[in-house]
Amino acid sequence: MRDIAVFSGSAHPELAEEICSHLGVPLLPTRVSRFANDCLEVQLQANCRERDVFLIQPLVPPVQENLVELLLMLDAARGASAARTTVVLPHYAYARSDKKDAPRISIGGRLVADLLVTAGANRVLAMTLHSPQVHGFFNIPVDHLHALRELADHFKQYDLTDTVVVSPDLGNAKEAAAFARMLGTPVAAGAKQRFSDDKVKISAVIGDVVDRDVIVLDDEIAKGSTVIELMDHLRELKVRSIRLACTHGLFSSGALQRLSDQPGVEEIVCTNTVPMPALKRVPKLRTLSVAPALAEAMRRIHNGESVSALFH
Amino acid sequence: MRDIAVFSGSAHPELAEEICSHLGVPLLPTRVSRFANDCLEVQLQANCRERDVFLIQPLVPPVQENLVELLLMLDAARGASAARTTVVLPHYAYARSDKKDAPRISIGGRLVADLLVTAGANRVLAMTLHSPQVHGFFNIPVDHLHALRELADHFKQYDLTDTVVVSPDLGNAKEAAAFARMLGTPVAAGAKQRFSDDKVKISAVIGDVVDRDVIVLDDEIAKGSTVIELMDHLRELKVRSIRLACTHGLFSSGALQRLSDQPGVEEIVCTNTVPMPALKRVPKLRTLSVAPALAEAMRRIHNGESVSALFH
Amino acid sequence: MRDIAVFSGSAHPELAEEICSHLGVPLLPTRVSRFANDCLEVQLQANCRERDVFLIQPLVPPVQENLVELLLMLDAARGASAARTTVVLPHYAYARSDKKDAPRISIGGRLVADLLVTAGANRVLAMTLHSPQVHGFFNIPVDHLHALRELADHFKQYDLTDTVVVSPDLGNAKEAAAFARMLGTPVAAGAKQRFSDDKVKISAVIGDVVDRDVIVLDDEIAKGSTVIELMDHLRELKVRSIRLACTHGLFSSGALQRLSDQPGVEEIVCTNTVPMPALKRVPKLRTLSVAPALAEAMRRIHNGESVSALFH
Amino acid sequence: MRDIAVFSGSAHPELAEEICSHLGVPLLPTRVSRFANDCLEVQLQANCRERDVFLIQPLVPPVQENLVELLLMLDAARGASAARTTVVLPHYAYARSDKKDAPRISIGGRLVADLLVTAGANRVLAMTLHSPQVHGFFNIPVDHLHALRELADHFKQYDLTDTVVVSPDLGNAKEAAAFARMLGTPVAAGAKQRFSDDKVKISAVIGDVVDRDVIVLDDEIAKGSTVIELMDHLRELKVRSIRLACTHGLFSSGALQRLSDQPGVEEIVCTNTVPMPALKRVPKLRTLSVAPALAEAMRRIHNGESVSALFH
Amino acid sequence: MRDIAVFSGSAHPELAEEICSHLGVPLLPTRVSRFANDCLEVQLQANCRERDVFLIQPLVPPVQENLVELLLMLDAARGASAARTTVVLPHYAYARSDKKDAPRISIGGRLVADLLVTAGANRVLAMTLHSPQVHGFFNIPVDHLHALRELADHFKQYDLTDTVVVSPDLGNAKEAAAFARMLGTPVAAGAKQRFSDDKVKISAVIGDVVDRDVIVLDDEIAKGSTVIELMDHLRELKVRSIRLACTHGLFSSGALQRLSDQPGVEEIVCTNTVPMPALKRVPKLRTLSVAPALAEAMRRIHNGESVSALFH
Amino acid sequence: MRDIAVFSGSAHPELAEEICSHLGVPLLPTRVSRFANDCLEVQLQANCRERDVFLIQPLVPPVQENLVELLLMLDAARGASAARTTVVLPHYAYARSDKKDAPRISIGGRLVADLLVTAGANRVLAMTLHSPQVHGFFNIPVDHLHALRELADHFKQYDLTDTVVVSPDLGNAKEAAAFARMLGTPVAAGAKQRFSDDKVKISAVIGDVVDRDVIVLDDEIAKGSTVIELMDHLRELKVRSIRLACTHGLFSSGALQRLSDQPGVEEIVCTNTVPMPALKRVPKLRTLSVAPALAEAMRRIHNGESVSALFH
Repeated sequence: MRDIAVFSGSAHPELAEEICSHLGVPLLPTRVSRFANDCLEVQLQANCRERDVFLIQPLVPPVQENLVELLLMLDAARGASAARTTVVLPHYAYARSDKKDAPRISIGGRLVADLLVTAGANRVLAMTLHSPQVHGFFNIPVDHLHALRELADHFKQYDLTDTVVVSPDLGNAKEAAAFARMLGTPVAAGAKQRFSDDKVKISAVIGDVVDRDVIVLDDEIAKGSTVIELMDHLRELKVRSIRLACTHGLFSSGALQRLSDQPGVEEIVCTNTVPMPALKRVPKLRTLSVAPALAEAMRRIHNGESVSALFH
Repeated sequence: MRDIAVFSGSAHPELAEEICSHLGVPLLPTRVSRFANDCLEVQLQANCRERDVFLIQPLVPPVQENLVELLLMLDAARGASAARTTVVLPHYAYARSDKKDAPRISIGGRLVADLLVTAGANRVLAMTLHSPQVHGFFNIPVDHLHALRELADHFKQYDLTDTVVVSPDLGNAKEAAAFARMLGTPVAAGAKQRFSDDKVKISAVIGDVVDRDVIVLDDEIAKGSTVIELMDHLRELKVRSIRLACTHGLFSSGALQRLSDQPGVEEIVCTNTVPMPALKRVPKLRTLSVAPALAEAMRRIHNGESVSALFH
Repeated sequence: MRDIAVFSGSAHPELAEEICSHLGVPLLPTRVSRFANDCLEVQLQANCRERDVFLIQPLVPPVQENLVELLLMLDAARGASAARTTVVLPHYAYARSDKKDAPRISIGGRLVADLLVTAGANRVLAMTLHSPQVHGFFNIPVDHLHALRELADHFKQYDLTDTVVVSPDLGNAKEAAAFARMLGTPVAAGAKQRFSDDKVKISAVIGDVVDRDVIVLDDEIAKGSTVIELMDHLRELKVRSIRLACTHGLFSSGALQRLSDQPGVEEIVCTNTVPMPALKRVPKLRTLSVAPALAEAMRRIHNGESVSALFH
Repeated sequence: MRDIAVFSGSAHPELAEEICSHLGVPLLPTRVSRFANDCLEVQLQANCRERDVFLIQPLVPPVQENLVELLLMLDAARGASAARTTVVLPHYAYARSDKKDAPRISIGGRLVADLLVTAGANRVLAMTLHSPQVHGFFNIPVDHLHALRELADHFKQYDLTDTVVVSPDLGNAKEAAAFARMLGTPVAAGAKQRFSDDKVKISAVIGDVVDRDVIVLDDEIAKGSTVIELMDHLRELKVRSIRLACTHGLFSSGALQRLSDQPGVEEIVCTNTVPMPALKRVPKLRTLSVAPALAEAMRRIHNGESVSALFH
Repeated sequence: MRDIAVFSGSAHPELAEEICSHLGVPLLPTRVSRFANDCLEVQLQANCRERDVFLIQPLVPPVQENLVELLLMLDAARGASAARTTVVLPHYAYARSDKKDAPRISIGGRLVADLLVTAGANRVLAMTLHSPQVHGFFNIPVDHLHALRELADHFKQYDLTDTVVVSPDLGNAKEAAAFARMLGTPVAAGAKQRFSDDKVKISAVIGDVVDRDVIVLDDEIAKGSTVIELMDHLRELKVRSIRLACTHGLFSSGALQRLSDQPGVEEIVCTNTVPMPALKRVPKLRTLSVAPALAEAMRRIHNGESVSALFH
Repeated sequence: MRDIAVFSGSAHPELAEEICSHLGVPLLPTRVSRFANDCLEVQLQANCRERDVFLIQPLVPPVQENLVELLLMLDAARGASAARTTVVLPHYAYARSDKKDAPRISIGGRLVADLLVTAGANRVLAMTLHSPQVHGFFNIPVDHLHALRELADHFKQYDLTDTVVVSPDLGNAKEAAAFARMLGTPVAAGAKQRFSDDKVKISAVIGDVVDRDVIVLDDEIAKGSTVIELMDHLRELKVRSIRLACTHGLFSSGALQRLSDQPGVEEIVCTNTVPMPALKRVPKLRTLSVAPALAEAMRRIHNGESVSALFH
């Protein structure tokens, strides 16, 4: 295997630039043309032959445009004789389509995994997938990072004496517990579940949160309605303050402003797996960079060193 | 497509016989030979050519023997020119290996799905898979049944005025809620979670169970330790009586006796997806048959009728 | 094979409705949901099991949205046990990406063919593909229609005594010649070719057009610049009148108005393979329907009758 | 990747020897046995293990023998643990079967591409494919060379003041224009097209050829009838002299003598992609070697250097 | 599945005609064109859509021509939407290349099986494969016939009182024993084996042949040298008369005359799996037809009836 | 390719340890867990990333357990980004299921080969496969060793003046002849064949054995009944002494004691491809190690050196 070659699609070039500066390699140019009939064509504008190619493209809105662009980049890399092509997916939106909970529906999380392989992907580097089973949808090796260390380093600046980490649901509680251990705090969890076809609800916060400083941790926040419901419960339980933390800050349709306006919210922390337009930003927002972690994982993948060792 | 042809492996011939009697077709003979070197050879002993072949084999202990036998049956059916081969998997044990929660481990749920396809499976009929994402591990059509109606019909014989359905964990709560709706009862759930690498526990029973008759519903019971821990909590909460219900009654290593001996347990109800040796049985055990449901699903698959309609 | 089941994506439901009314079958409902994170989910809302499923979706703008939606529809049909799934592609936009004329570029025409197969397509019904070699990009059967008969029937209403059919380039001349034969007229062709990397041009109109009524025939018109250049030549050669005819009327970015404004243009004729918003329409436009031809081809595919016989 | 290992089939060992002498590596021995029942068996008679294997075999007559021999060589290389196997196809005869212009015919250009991959080809090095779309028939990387530089170097020895390059048809005109640019001459093209099912002809020479020295450039010449027809036109247009140039000099059934006998023909130039038996040769024939170009491309493929850079 | 459609390649149209007349269906026309560059193109000249297509082509000399022609026929049938394509291989010459007995050689028997599948074969009907393991080289269903009944019916016309069936080697002895049982005679076998790399020979005739009428039975006879050596032994053992019988009468390079000239040979019996040019025939030759058996197997395959039942 | 990484399954860790000590590398730890429901999970407990991974696992009893464990190890190695995974199969039990000698039976030898590839095997190192055709069941490279040199070195300690090597049947005679040549002795063979469906037997010992010291050589001995029958014949022929030699000493159900008790048997020699429990051992048994040969082959595979050269 010869030199590394890193390209970025249109989804998040700033993240790609930052990764490359950590790696100490140039971000190689990609040309994406759109024809009069709306079709795309991709040209990778640097030699890929026998190179270890990385294509950085989170599946963020516009998801379909970014997905097809990524598939065309993979096709171009294969045709250009890349030795190996790794898709770097800081956010894999289709991971949420992971089950068939109604008849005759698509399972997008599995389909997109198959499409990436068809187009030429040899391996995937992902971050904080929505459910761990999505790993099994790929029949190529997947390295799966999370951003807990980055988030923990941020919160360590505060006095955490009376702090508790709260997961909005028990499905995510294992990650919240690991996070709490990094911070040396206890952990609690919301137990809210909605059951669409029968209106039954079970709702509670398990663990002690009264008079505590709360850090709510979730994998991603899109519309934010679950978190807002959780905060209603937390306020009823007389928590002292609330900070929100997540890996994927999608914040669709005014969510950021809405969350920021909630009483008691002191800070909203996310990472840069998803691009954040300046217009969306609010003063309470802090964005941490996952570029160093992704760069280190790419370096280890390129050099054949253990990536799981990153987490110990 | 011509006639249906149903064969059974060694795992659970009684269930296969019962299914066939509901379908009104004979269970066709299968010969399994074991050579001096411990290799197996399978012969399907009736014409499969252009037939719609169904192979019934739950993956129950001895799992590896039953799995390889099933793979050989698939190979034989393909070689014998079956028009289509459906694997009927009343219990898919490897579904629990659905994620990569440690470095360099196998994901058996996905691997076995791929092996079945390699050996010639065209479709799968499964029952109560451990997690709904496992569906996405197969790249062939899967019909996924559950046994809630059978279990509900059983419990309707009782006075359910003060009854509550309890799920041992929230992961299974959606199914428990659907079950409670069938019975016209409320629902509650245990919220216990173990986190192996950091010893953090969150434990509670969410929902009102005090002085109630409880039906604990789980997808499968193997060693039974989770259920036993839940019953400790339930007794602390002064429940009136406990009945246990599950689809897959594996009851390994004396679990049935141990559960039966728990104070307050009035009844243990499971289905016959897993064979139950006479020696294991205890007086409190009731076994319901899923043969009519599997037979009806097979009839619909054979005739091209909707299987999802079965649940409405 | 049992009943036919026809579904449409979002790209062109009017055409799908019209096809179904010719077939005498209902257009079955499709639900397309878009989640907060911009991912799509498709549900085919009628039984597909063992049905002969047809999915109608031209790849027209927004191409990437329509393509991913089609891939999800295919995945849903496969998961729902369709006996056979035929993609009806009245327009295949990516067919123009059919060669590698620069280093390290994608070949979208081949890639998208492979993606359709990965998602579950069993066969394709296409219309007037940009180049005949694109047929070979698919490794599933392709039925390839053209719309010459529909276009010819339209022009037969006129006095064609002094008419000549003109192809804008020789690559398309074979089709123009077949069209001229249907009308009983002579044929001519533009011989313009642009060579991007070296500025060499060869330009001429071959065949007699002086003082004739001209019908310009092309496969598709997007921006219309080639046709406008041809019309400059035709006017220099003193043609009497000009009519434009094409199968795929994309007419991007004001092309329809621009063409309509050209001196000497009496009529612009296209088919409805591409949806035509009311706002775009101009008085000189005539849109012919390919729905009867597509319906008849689908009927023959369903019944196993020869489709090539349609053209004799 | 370790050492390079180059083998030749029976089709054109002279070219393979010449390539190897340019590469400075030995041509390794291949044994081809023919059994009493006419089957072939191939043995590659040097270690291939973890080597970068190149198999040189143009698909020239007897095409079927050479094709099956090549497929067996690929099988042997794969079985012998080659690290990578590149098929060097100086002439790919089946490229002409690239479309389905009649019902129920084979598309040999795509089929043979698939057969090569099935037998174990990892990549292809081709020269002057008949149409650029054929590239898309392969789902493995293809490096596509042309021989324009070799041909141009030959003609630069002449006084080219009044010379014009003529392409027999516009399909090949882009290549002719590139060639003319190398020579610093203008370009012209025949515009003849035959339409088999309707007898319509459009015929002309576009561009100025009167009283010029003409170089006719085509990709391949087999029977030569197109070129002979073009020369009739050129003589009517009073050209001064004619030279013929092509990459693939197949010259079947006396074509070379027939072309040589045409009035005005001063020279026939081809390359050695196709073997030329001594008996066929005529005094006016000049054969240029593509061995240096193929060797250089192989060297770059082996070393992971850009092949497209060869053309700049 | 709709009507049957039977086509023949160039290898043995007489056999195909005879099969069709037994089936009572027409042999549909196939057009095979050879281009100036020696490439083949196949057109199946009757509707294949949703038909049950059978392609009859023994792999007899010229094997490579017949193989590539068959692959193109398969490609044409797939492209023409055949419901199922069965290759009828009365003789599979490459079956002899079934092992790797030297380093870096091709295993043609496996490779050709893979090529047939790549080109579109769905199943194979073969006759008297050289070794039973070859069956396992195919990953599609294979029906494997033999011609023992045809051969036995011929010999029953004689007084078989003192007859013994002799297999030239023990590898073929199981078939000889089955044949002897049909005739009610004892069986014997030659035990000659050649070991190419060490010159060791073990040679004998096992079983009683002295003063007997011998029928030598082999699967195929090509050059005939093994049989001639066996006959030397048999004459030493004073047999009374010799008749030769085989399924595949290849009789290459004068073998038929040479065998016919051997002292004591009264008759040479083969079947028509391999075409027999009039010039080769000798007076002692009897050719039996396998057309009825192949036709009956094809009828059963088409109707989904058991083919193995044919042999009981 | 970076470092070698060697793991062993549960089947034969002693052999794996011995191989590693010859290679001078550590045997890396594998964890195999068995869940309450009898499913297995494998963890390879050392970094595999970009390593050249070897998994050592003979398919010995319990065959199904060992096979599934091996498949899970392959899945784990693939998921852990091994550069290449070689299965080391000192004994491939399913090789005996290599043909379809009854209707509708499995062909395990081919199926298991396909399963290994599905699970992620890139190549196989096997020893003394039951029939050479099994090689062709794999579509990945196979290196096929035998243990003749090890066995010959053992017997060279004796005076071999009057010794003869005897193969129990002619199918194995080629190997016996090669062995005899190594020892400088003549060769003989039993010619016994059983024909299950017709009771015909042909039985003899070909070659001179009277008053000789006999070494019986077979590929494997399981129940030993064939060898015991041969020894009856040999004693009738008054041999002087008998020694037994085989590669795979399975010795099922008391076979070792039974063979040891036969009159005239002086020694039983096998290799350690199959583990030998202490309880089974008898005084006459000698076990030779194939670890040096397997280690040397693995070293050559890792370094890209010829393995076939090992045998010259």
